[in-house]
Amino acid sequence: MNKKLVFNTLAKMGLIETALMVLPLLVAVWYKEYPSLKVFLFVVLMIAAVNLLMLLFIKPDKKDMTARDGIAVAALGWIFLSVYGAIPFYISGQIPDFMNALFESISGFTTTGASILSNVESLSKSMMFWRCLTHWIGGMGVLVLTVALLPSDKKSSGLQLMRAECPGPTVEKLVPKGKSSAMILYFIYAALTCIMVTLLLIGGMPLYDSVCHAFGTAGTGGFNVKNAGLAFYDSAYIEGVVTVFMILFGVNFNIYYFLIMRKFVGIYKNTELKVYLGTIIASITVIIINTMQYGIFDRFSKALRYSAFQVGSIMTSTGYATADFDAWPEFSKTLLICLMFVGACAGSTGGGFKVSRVIILAKTAKRSLRKAMHPKSVNVVKADDKALDLETVHNVSSYLIIYIAIFFVSLMIIALNNFDFGTSFSSVTACLNNIGPGISRVGPTCDYSALSNLSKSVLSIDMLLGRLECLPLLMLCAPSMWNKKLY
Amino acid sequence: MNKKLVFNTLAKMGLIETALMVLPLLVAVWYKEYPSLKVFLFVVLMIAAVNLLMLLFIKPDKKDMTARDGIAVAALGWIFLSVYGAIPFYISGQIPDFMNALFESISGFTTTGASILSNVESLSKSMMFWRCLTHWIGGMGVLVLTVALLPSDKKSSGLQLMRAECPGPTVEKLVPKGKSSAMILYFIYAALTCIMVTLLLIGGMPLYDSVCHAFGTAGTGGFNVKNAGLAFYDSAYIEGVVTVFMILFGVNFNIYYFLIMRKFVGIYKNTELKVYLGTIIASITVIIINTMQYGIFDRFSKALRYSAFQVGSIMTSTGYATADFDAWPEFSKTLLICLMFVGACAGSTGGGFKVSRVIILAKTAKRSLRKAMHPKSVNVVKADDKALDLETVHNVSSYLIIYIAIFFVSLMIIALNNFDFGTSFSSVTACLNNIGPGISRVGPTCDYSALSNLSKSVLSIDMLLGRLECLPLLMLCAPSMWNKKLY
Repeated sequence: MNKKLVFNTLAKMGLIETALMVLPLLVAVWYKEYPSLKVFLFVVLMIAAVNLLMLLFIKPDKKDMTARDGIAVAALGWIFLSVYGAIPFYISGQIPDFMNALFESISGFTTTGASILSNVESLSKSMMFWRCLTHWIGGMGVLVLTVALLPSDKKSSGLQLMRAECPGPTVEKLVPKGKSSAMILYFIYAALTCIMVTLLLIGGMPLYDSVCHAFGTAGTGGFNVKNAGLAFYDSAYIEGVVTVFMILFGVNFNIYYFLIMRKFVGIYKNTELKVYLGTIIASITVIIINTMQYGIFDRFSKALRYSAFQVGSIMTSTGYATADFDAWPEFSKTLLICLMFVGACAGSTGGGFKVSRVIILAKTAKRSLRKAMHPKSVNVVKADDKALDLETVHNVSSYLIIYIAIFFVSLMIIALNNFDFGTSFSSVTACLNNIGPGISRVGPTCDYSALSNLSKSVLSIDMLLGRLECLPLLMLCAPSMWNKKLY
Repeated sequence: MNKKLVFNTLAKMGLIETALMVLPLLVAVWYKEYPSLKVFLFVVLMIAAVNLLMLLFIKPDKKDMTARDGIAVAALGWIFLSVYGAIPFYISGQIPDFMNALFESISGFTTTGASILSNVESLSKSMMFWRCLTHWIGGMGVLVLTVALLPSDKKSSGLQLMRAECPGPTVEKLVPKGKSSAMILYFIYAALTCIMVTLLLIGGMPLYDSVCHAFGTAGTGGFNVKNAGLAFYDSAYIEGVVTVFMILFGVNFNIYYFLIMRKFVGIYKNTELKVYLGTIIASITVIIINTMQYGIFDRFSKALRYSAFQVGSIMTSTGYATADFDAWPEFSKTLLICLMFVGACAGSTGGGFKVSRVIILAKTAKRSLRKAMHPKSVNVVKADDKALDLETVHNVSSYLIIYIAIFFVSLMIIALNNFDFGTSFSSVTACLNNIGPGISRVGPTCDYSALSNLSKSVLSIDMLLGRLECLPLLMLCAPSMWNKKLY
């Protein structure tokens, strides 16, 4: 790789993160939290200094960014981002163990929402704000923000960075990727977040809580502000708003772009959107029937409220919980676990395997069955009425294989904790798919603090692998990635 | 399909099964079990009559068997086989519920070894013999036996039938498939079974028990003859013999063919064999360390004895148990669950996803990663130094997708029993991979009788899907399969 260009870009990204860390600093000023204020001031100055020095001394000779450079920036960038983000938790002493602080930071940026804190209310207001802000930053991507905000010398840089940070097999392409599309994406993202804050304020939620929850929802992250989670407010209106917005943030952002451009045909023809919404509605219906049958809820309205919230939360990989779904009947729990694997739409802030990939896999299997029936026929895998090239189909299959391999290796290591199978299985599922809570010992009423440091490291890597969709981090480990001659 | 040809072949298969059912009839004569004798006599005469009538009245016009006809015979044949096989259990009243009798019969023929009997010793000697014989018949395949024994008018018939009953991506091909290769396969199969019976007799096991256990081992089935399983004999020698033979029957039978033909290069170059044996040795080592660390075994020799047996049993999908591995540490249990998915070698009597498929998947993923690193390079997926064609690679990926889809659908239905996640997950794993016991409520000390009839039906279908590697049964459901005009 072009190391100078990569580290130069990483320095820019670090400065953007520093700028964002000024926000919790201001919160600390507002709430007069002087210990936290000192921590944020120190961290902001330190990271700013380090990155400014990097920017000054590392000047790239060639400014053309290749695909490999973009991938290196994404992989290294997310590691740097997480380490910087963990520092305030650690040096403030609010999360005294560095592994825990790093886990919390990675969980935040990757919008997983898995926490090692059993008492989240013990955090200071400003630290809590930073914790929730990491969701918002990670949701749309920090490199996308870097591309949107900083002047780029070469158009190719923005393209490569966005491709590496927002992979996913999107059939419809937004405007040619680069600075302009990064700005459009962040504009839609910020606008939806503001609307959500307003609606939560109308519901009587305090401003601070509204902003924090909007961050968590927008990034489909799911960190709680109260120990009791959203159940604290016990308001059907607030839960309704969060449910709708979780589902909205799980939609491919291209759809909103089409909406703004009044290209309604693009929306109508979008198979992924139909499958996504169809799955949500079907799952809610089935869970209502199953939970009412087992007497978990006595009224339909209550069952609708809790199951809609939970399905939206799991399918979009947000991970908020208003009910202890671990106590629900096994069928509903298993359905939720299956939804964890499906995940949200490609091009959204949600995690998981992505609906579009599931569609491509289903079509590949269908084609294969048809081929077995009629060996001489020519079958093409199509999506949105367009034939998909064999390379895309092949890549999605390979992604599935890599994903399964990572899953089983992680599962084996987590099993070393000697917890029950449900805990091991669901903790890997929840981290690799960036959900947050699992079942059993990592269920919605528990946290990840009981796991060993080895397990936390593995789950941290899983969260990063899930967010960046495996390839960048794996490629970073290849020796040829670091070889300059190959380029 | 060519319905007349299909049903004509099914009638031949039915007659072969009738002939095999004479064996338990003779056992009933020997042990003077007159109620069972009457049952077998009645069933043999009835099935023989039905199939003779079918053979007399259904004469095919065209005798050329297409691939689709072969697949139809395999799918329908295994359903007929299982129904015929269940009749003795049912009308003798030894398994009074027909769903249970069918489950037991399917579990036998598919060499799964999952049982609904909590007290196997309640069966009469002849019924027990039939139960174990189903493993032996199902292991190498009843259609292969039909091809081997009956004169075939067309060479293509044998080829198509064997291809449908023994699919799997084998890189090395045996002699041109057909009558001669079916006879070679059954000769090796019978010879190995005889050697095993002899070795068990030397160990002091009674003849009846030796034959039954050899049937169960050869088919990699795993039905127990005693309630205590093989632990009843408490002999390290017997367990050692069973361990070695389980592993031998999990090897691709081509290897034995090469051995007979003294083609040692073919054995030496076989990647699947190396990976298969390597995985077994590595897993045994790891489980010894893990179980000794948790104090399950106090001596190395004991740990070796039990872990080698269990790894061999699970990896080859036999499913015998000498220890309650459900009480082992979670790491060992999870490793065993992972091995359940890998399964034995293609072209063996074992089940699971098959080692060769795992190798092809791993190579596909590796190629994909390399392609991402070096987009312009040309990468080919190779196995045993030969390039695999894209269609094979594509088919294995599709198989994985179909397998996962079946897995999740089954898991959802089993979850309706409201048992814990470990039970639901492992019962589907154990049936789809033709293993037998799972963990928790379907663990080695339990049985499948507690599940609902719906669950038993689903698991029965899973066992058949696993044995026939999905395609035949799925294709049987396609309307175009039944359309004559297409052919």
